[in-house]
Amino acid sequence: MKINNSPLDILFKPKNIVIFKANQKISFFVEGFIRQGYDLEKLFLISTTEKEILGVRCYNVIEDIPEDEIDLLILSIRRDLLIESLKRILSKKKVRFVHIFTAGTGEFDDLGMDIERKLKVVLDNYKDTRAIGPNCMGLYSPRGKIAYYSSFPVERGNIGLIFQSGDLHSKMIKFSSKKYDLRFSIGISIGNCIDIQISEILEYLNEDIETDVICIYFEGISPLHINEGKKLFKVLKKMRKPVLFMRGGKTSRGQKAVLTHTGALATKSDIWQAIYKQTSIIEVPSSLEELIDYTYLFSRYISRFHKLNIEVTFPKNKKALVILWSGGFGILATDSLTELGIELPLFEGKALEKLKTIFPIRVGSLSNPFDIPWITHRKEVVDICKSAIDENIDLVIIETDTWRDMENERFKGYYKNLLELREYVESLNKIFIIILHQYPSKSLEMFHQKLMNDKFIVYSTIEAAAKAFLKLFEFGKKLERM
Amino acid sequence: MKINNSPLDILFKPKNIVIFKANQKISFFVEGFIRQGYDLEKLFLISTTEKEILGVRCYNVIEDIPEDEIDLLILSIRRDLLIESLKRILSKKKVRFVHIFTAGTGEFDDLGMDIERKLKVVLDNYKDTRAIGPNCMGLYSPRGKIAYYSSFPVERGNIGLIFQSGDLHSKMIKFSSKKYDLRFSIGISIGNCIDIQISEILEYLNEDIETDVICIYFEGISPLHINEGKKLFKVLKKMRKPVLFMRGGKTSRGQKAVLTHTGALATKSDIWQAIYKQTSIIEVPSSLEELIDYTYLFSRYISRFHKLNIEVTFPKNKKALVILWSGGFGILATDSLTELGIELPLFEGKALEKLKTIFPIRVGSLSNPFDIPWITHRKEVVDICKSAIDENIDLVIIETDTWRDMENERFKGYYKNLLELREYVESLNKIFIIILHQYPSKSLEMFHQKLMNDKFIVYSTIEAAAKAFLKLFEFGKKLERM
Repeated sequence: MKINNSPLDILFKPKNIVIFKANQKISFFVEGFIRQGYDLEKLFLISTTEKEILGVRCYNVIEDIPEDEIDLLILSIRRDLLIESLKRILSKKKVRFVHIFTAGTGEFDDLGMDIERKLKVVLDNYKDTRAIGPNCMGLYSPRGKIAYYSSFPVERGNIGLIFQSGDLHSKMIKFSSKKYDLRFSIGISIGNCIDIQISEILEYLNEDIETDVICIYFEGISPLHINEGKKLFKVLKKMRKPVLFMRGGKTSRGQKAVLTHTGALATKSDIWQAIYKQTSIIEVPSSLEELIDYTYLFSRYISRFHKLNIEVTFPKNKKALVILWSGGFGILATDSLTELGIELPLFEGKALEKLKTIFPIRVGSLSNPFDIPWITHRKEVVDICKSAIDENIDLVIIETDTWRDMENERFKGYYKNLLELREYVESLNKIFIIILHQYPSKSLEMFHQKLMNDKFIVYSTIEAAAKAFLKLFEFGKKLERM
Repeated sequence: MKINNSPLDILFKPKNIVIFKANQKISFFVEGFIRQGYDLEKLFLISTTEKEILGVRCYNVIEDIPEDEIDLLILSIRRDLLIESLKRILSKKKVRFVHIFTAGTGEFDDLGMDIERKLKVVLDNYKDTRAIGPNCMGLYSPRGKIAYYSSFPVERGNIGLIFQSGDLHSKMIKFSSKKYDLRFSIGISIGNCIDIQISEILEYLNEDIETDVICIYFEGISPLHINEGKKLFKVLKKMRKPVLFMRGGKTSRGQKAVLTHTGALATKSDIWQAIYKQTSIIEVPSSLEELIDYTYLFSRYISRFHKLNIEVTFPKNKKALVILWSGGFGILATDSLTELGIELPLFEGKALEKLKTIFPIRVGSLSNPFDIPWITHRKEVVDICKSAIDENIDLVIIETDTWRDMENERFKGYYKNLLELREYVESLNKIFIIILHQYPSKSLEMFHQKLMNDKFIVYSTIEAAAKAFLKLFEFGKKLERM
């Protein structure tokens, strides 16, 4: 495996791990490591109350463990014991990275803020020891076989995450892996940032060969690192990988909520507007669902180029061909796509006649949207679509619904058409998206699973697909200007 | 059953039905009637090619059927045979209502438009015969045990539908009944409107005692009924039931698509903006999903008042209490609700101290959003929430996730709290909504089903819930001004 030759490599691939102190309440860490296949001989649990957790032996005190150097120390202890414990451990062992899991610090009250200040002083005395947190869930790094939840996928992917909320970080991984089969290179719930900053991790992910798209959930700057703002801006300016940036505390009411969450310093909206203008980063609305929707398209789109070993290019225009089963949906799609700023080139006159010579329809429409439910299984559909897709079309959207019977010839013809069309569209480096509306239904679930297995890009609404496409388009335009 | 004493009653509860001509391709009608439990002795199929369809006998010619009067004639025949067939049938039998199913008429080409004109002339000669269509799927009326698809629910509900798209009409019923257990009073896919107009059905639904909320999908006015615009406006002005109005062809590009769909006359956006201002109708964006989301809340909200036999009142303010499991989600929720125009009263100072005396939290927040994942199962949570809900709060949102184990004591305590809280919130005539993010998961599905069985209002995103609430609020404010 290629590594980045950065000191942070060890954080994401630690040779050994100590949890201080382990107990049943945080057994999810152990479960996560087991699931990822981490070498349990190198996982050391320190506990005075437990003998073992999930089959992993507990040591009474840190002196008992055989290792002198600790790559990753997970510190989970009452906040009033944090400073003394850290000092004591650092005096006994060489520690490369500390993940301070404990919450209720700077985000909670003045006493907690004081604890953060003192922790920083301790860390400043140990230059070789770096820390993430406090108030964070920590690391997900399939390359290092570490994860704090057993529900996180073992397989590696091309998405990097830096989140100032452990729960959002967890839900991003859980929801998106289950919903869209997304996979990740590295994820970090980074918390209150008393030592390692977002900018450092971002630089790391920018160099990381496995990472194609980066998602950041940002709440603010630690009061202990007021220069981080400038550093972050500097790193963002040089980013050439897409960074999907979701900011918590965009509204002033939201800022008040941030104070009780990470205790981060407020940043102003106008500053962020300037940053969005001067960098290639993509602003994401305050919705985890939208972030996941966007990440899906970026991840899948870029990885296709990388697999073919060709340079990534982004859509030049915002022109779509829409193919569906329903006139009514066609009207709604036309209105909503038009309102979002996507064009639907109208096929009329000679262009329309040309399409009609391929298949003379008696009802429905070939004007774009195509409304041709009765012939979706016939091979002429592919010919009509191919004829309609010239260099102007950037996006082909097929809206569909479940099939009662996935064994009959109509379905087989239809599905063959989907595969053939996608191949054609993607051979032109254009985007092919299927819309499958979601509602509880066994046959829908089966059809959806089949589409997912065959790696189709499937969204549940045309708006979600269109918004994701527009972000990809925006990123391409931004890159051009950089 | 109370009826409306309108001539249209028969349309929605026909004593007999003739399908001319029946064939396997449109056996879905027969399936629909069977599913609804329509008296098959009164369903007469006319076919020269089939002997029976799904066990229902076919007659060769219409003269063979024993009935002299036909309440509902479904006319499904090639467009070039439409006029002669209709003339012939009307000369033989007294027909109350014709559903002209045939498509490819006014929406398709000039010849089709000519056919519509001629059909109207025929109908004008038979004043007792009224028609819906052409180019429409027709009727869904569980009170009359009729439906054109077997997937439509048999149970009756409080939602009325008037749709100028058969497919959107079908999908509205299918998606919303499966997703939210919505149920309908009457649904009509009305098509190109050569005779019966939207305004007539709307007046009927306004008087209909079972109908609490009406959804319209509108594309335009038939060129044969240019006065319908004024009539519709008049009816809309006197509506006191909520009308959720979705307009196809809002954009000029969308209008071009409308032409190929229903062939309706274009209506202008500025006229519609004036209508929205002068009436209580609620504008819905071009998204079936949003229409379904809004309908869900209107239907459930109003039916609760009716069940208690009290007058319906609407939210006075836009103030929400948000309770969740996650600080990060709390920030996002605060930002997105604030941006949408919903207020989250901030609990600070004495108000916050008061809440903290009920349960002294060590991490998380009680500032609104509540971020109290560790104690969701304790009964103090109910006390905290009750204390926080005063007359200012209109909406309580609980964001949750799946439970691995729905048998353990924590879950039971949590679920008991949900039931107790909802009861309290609804006793104050306020709205209680649960947010359950959707992704493929067996345990999530089970939890969701449990919530649905217990009639909780459950949305998959906080934005969807908030938008639905805002439409309800908007309707209340509009009613006040009327």
